Amino acid sequence: MIKSYYFYAMISVVLLGAGNLANHLYQAFKIAERIKVVQWYNRSYSEVSSFKNEVNVTDSLEDLVEADVYILAISDDSIAEISSALPFDNSLVVHTSGSVSIHQLDKKLKRGVFYPLQSFTKDASLNFNEVPICLEALDKESFDLLNALSDALGCTSYKISTEQRQTLHLCAVFVNNFVNQLYRVSHEISDAKRINFDILKPLILETSKKVQNMSPYKAQTGPAKRNDKRTIKRHLKQIENPEHKAIYELLTKAIKKTHGQR
Amino acid sequence: MIKSYYFYAMISVVLLGAGNLANHLYQAFKIAERIKVVQWYNRSYSEVSSFKNEVNVTDSLEDLVEADVYILAISDDSIAEISSALPFDNSLVVHTSGSVSIHQLDKKLKRGVFYPLQSFTKDASLNFNEVPICLEALDKESFDLLNALSDALGCTSYKISTEQRQTLHLCAVFVNNFVNQLYRVSHEISDAKRINFDILKPLILETSKKVQNMSPYKAQTGPAKRNDKRTIKRHLKQIENPEHKAIYELLTKAIKKTHGQR
Repeated sequence: MIKSYYFYAMISVVLLGAGNLANHLYQAFKIAERIKVVQWYNRSYSEVSSFKNEVNVTDSLEDLVEADVYILAISDDSIAEISSALPFDNSLVVHTSGSVSIHQLDKKLKRGVFYPLQSFTKDASLNFNEVPICLEALDKESFDLLNALSDALGCTSYKISTEQRQTLHLCAVFVNNFVNQLYRVSHEISDAKRINFDILKPLILETSKKVQNMSPYKAQTGPAKRNDKRTIKRHLKQIENPEHKAIYELLTKAIKKTHGQR
Repeated sequence: MIKSYYFYAMISVVLLGAGNLANHLYQAFKIAERIKVVQWYNRSYSEVSSFKNEVNVTDSLEDLVEADVYILAISDDSIAEISSALPFDNSLVVHTSGSVSIHQLDKKLKRGVFYPLQSFTKDASLNFNEVPICLEALDKESFDLLNALSDALGCTSYKISTEQRQTLHLCAVFVNNFVNQLYRVSHEISDAKRINFDILKPLILETSKKVQNMSPYKAQTGPAKRNDKRTIKRHLKQIENPEHKAIYELLTKAIKKTHGQR
């Protein structure tokens, strides 16, 4: 396969937005050898002004400079509006959202999606080259450029349609927000008995590591999978909060069903 | 604080059982400088016979040799029976279960609990020194010995009562079995749209890493916490399986309640 010329050339980027993702992207672009951030736009100047000595910063869409790709790292609700307000056409503009359709970008533009599937927190540093990038574009040249951009970051990229991306966004809620809520429930239960939550942390890590090389189906253990009725009954008796009990019952039922118990 | 003499002496151990935990314990004891496994018992000889060149193995309780501590790494249901069948009294015997009371061990013995809170899989290797050990004993000398044993393994240990241990066992079901079932649901949903589950693995890891240094409450993000009704409604429309929908609804409700939304 012949790689597109972008694999060898410098890729120029204009970054738009200054939230968590934009900040993580900026730091990752800065250290990537084949990527040059030629401008950083944000509607509120104060949030980017501290970078003015290392990059061209602006709060005016009219002042945007030329680049290979414009990256909208902005809220879902602003994507359609900002893309329409861009004072040029036929340049490649991508959004970074898990749930917004590629078609919400203005038709006058070359359109694409560059969705890094990870949870970005303000102060938590993270190796960007471990973040999978979901790519979508409406023409091959744009797709190749996004692929090269991901490659220049050291990331693994995947060709993902808008529908698949929206499914991934839903899955991310299960494996991130819902999993985190189970940690929270466990924190509440342990706190009530004055147990140090630290004791559970190695198990939390190990559970997530196990499914890196084994399917969740195969990794499952415990009373629900074994249909150990006595333990399940005792656990239900131990739980004082009816909302915790409802979660225990529903997930126990789900595990039993998955593993052919009734 | 003056450490007990066990911190300086060799600790002799008889290990009973040959399941996952017993095998992980044996390997960890073998490399610990201040621990000597003087015998390995299992009711079925064939499961320990391959170790006969490196340790005294037996399938007869009558042949048990003397040791500082006898560790029952056997199924919950066998603990009371095996402890009664031991042909000695007044020696320290501990079980390794998260849910069995210390009082199920026969009264003729010095009794204790040595519960490593981790999920042990047959072929998955694991650094035993990262496993937290929950300790319980009925007298101070026994507790000190268990503490020294845990220390000789390089583990962090915690003084945990039977009631607290049973609570931890319940918490472990939430952060291990139930979390793993959420991974499974996500695997089912992504498979149905022919999406590579690998894309979700870095997020799975990051979610578990985040709560190592931050409370689950503080680590929470996403549509339920923000009470983003439009995204929640779209997700519910995307989910085809009614059981997945029930899980989505219950955990979304729980997150909203935790974070003061309605």
